[in-house]
Amino acid sequence: MCELFALNSNAPASAAFSFSGLSERGGRTGEHKDGWGMAFNDASGCRVFVDAGQACDAPLAEFLRRHPIPACTVLAHVRKATQGAVALANCHPFQRECFGRHWVFAHNGDLKDFRPRLDGSYLPVGGTDSELAFCWLLQQVRRAFPGGATPRWPRLAPVLARLLPALARHGVFNMLLSDGHALYAYGATRLVWLERQRPFGRARLLDGGLEIDFSATNHDTDRMALVATRPLTDNEPWKAFEPGDLRVFFEGRSVWRQATSDADDRRDEAALAAELQSAG
Amino acid sequence: MCELFALNSNAPASAAFSFSGLSERGGRTGEHKDGWGMAFNDASGCRVFVDAGQACDAPLAEFLRRHPIPACTVLAHVRKATQGAVALANCHPFQRECFGRHWVFAHNGDLKDFRPRLDGSYLPVGGTDSELAFCWLLQQVRRAFPGGATPRWPRLAPVLARLLPALARHGVFNMLLSDGHALYAYGATRLVWLERQRPFGRARLLDGGLEIDFSATNHDTDRMALVATRPLTDNEPWKAFEPGDLRVFFEGRSVWRQATSDADDRRDEAALAAELQSAG
Repeated sequence: MCELFALNSNAPASAAFSFSGLSERGGRTGEHKDGWGMAFNDASGCRVFVDAGQACDAPLAEFLRRHPIPACTVLAHVRKATQGAVALANCHPFQRECFGRHWVFAHNGDLKDFRPRLDGSYLPVGGTDSELAFCWLLQQVRRAFPGGATPRWPRLAPVLARLLPALARHGVFNMLLSDGHALYAYGATRLVWLERQRPFGRARLLDGGLEIDFSATNHDTDRMALVATRPLTDNEPWKAFEPGDLRVFFEGRSVWRQATSDADDRRDEAALAAELQSAG
Repeated sequence: MCELFALNSNAPASAAFSFSGLSERGGRTGEHKDGWGMAFNDASGCRVFVDAGQACDAPLAEFLRRHPIPACTVLAHVRKATQGAVALANCHPFQRECFGRHWVFAHNGDLKDFRPRLDGSYLPVGGTDSELAFCWLLQQVRRAFPGGATPRWPRLAPVLARLLPALARHGVFNMLLSDGHALYAYGATRLVWLERQRPFGRARLLDGGLEIDFSATNHDTDRMALVATRPLTDNEPWKAFEPGDLRVFFEGRSVWRQATSDADDRRDEAALAAELQSAG
């Protein structure tokens, strides 16, 4: 499996503190030593850093901890390979362009018997179930908005809420997705989240023990939401996703939530599952 | 305008020496201070680093000079903005996926009245003529191979030779393109190239004066081809592209060449130019 982290904020923010904790789990305090990656994606542009080494001691990871890149949305991933070799091409986050925006995607889990019908608009480069799921997801999103106009999150979220449970039927599927505007987080089995805003206090990493005083590094108007596989700090109120929750974060706030258990969604899910199975 | 650099080799090679020279032109010995980028693309995967600062003093550029990333194809670019703001989203190389491969692209030049008809398969994220040209090019490549199977360079090169002159009719168009297997270089106005192989000797950068002994850093079987806007070293036999040359480099060798002036191509070019103009 793998571990996920994301930050979404209302102004460009550094994720270097959180990444310090996550990257300890990439080979030192955790077993996720089969590659790592970090994406910075907002209106200014998109930068994705991937590396097939260990996040805990890779020179590029050290560079990113020492030279924070402020961004409104940040995704990070440390990998423990389940499907696909230990290779650069299999490191998350994956990146594609859709509707004239860069999209980034990271996955924790393991999908079985997942052989979707791909029309060629997005094809995987590496050999992971994760990149395959991302390609299928963007293909379906593009089909859902055939005019090519960029959907904002209020239109996109219900579409994702219909698509994601079909993926989760194939195994463990926790994921992070962002088009540089909103952050979409789907927690089939385990994800936690947290909002930080004024009054900012102190926080201490569970891994590595680094401490920070957010009141010294943030403005009063700053607001951010964080998502992770497991809590990264030991003194903040991390909250668990309900199994099957899709949450949307925008400008540093949790703005939308839909649970798979909502009865109305079951019919659509079944149709999608049938489509996926027929592609096998 | 901008400056381009590429390396193609038969085994993963470092481009840190050449990048040291190129990045001097990114704000110190040259005026190309509006961003820079470097892509490493081969069978192992694709990594693109972009930055809106100056290559001569950006911390990330310094990291790449100090921590060489060996790859079979490397592209680099230092930017002097002509179209599109100084912004991360406008930094080259640009990246897209096509046929299940990552493609990277960098451009030197300036296209006027270029408004191609885009079907949505690739759309620009930033505001440059360069990214627009890349999107149109990949769209046309995808149309030329509708089965979705990945074309190798012997099939792709003639298609590019037909497409690229249509872009060059809109202004200055020198470009580098790679799918991680071959390197395609088109020189409408100025590009130079060089092959390095045994016996390896010493080289000295024109910018910064750094020297290297390639016999100490290469094996006897290593072979590489380099392409640049202007020679990077002062004691190697750089050769100029003829205006309108498309050259393909594969496994460190120049393997294919076609000049725009070939009479047989003129009819196809005219048809393409008409298609582009009708889209305006």
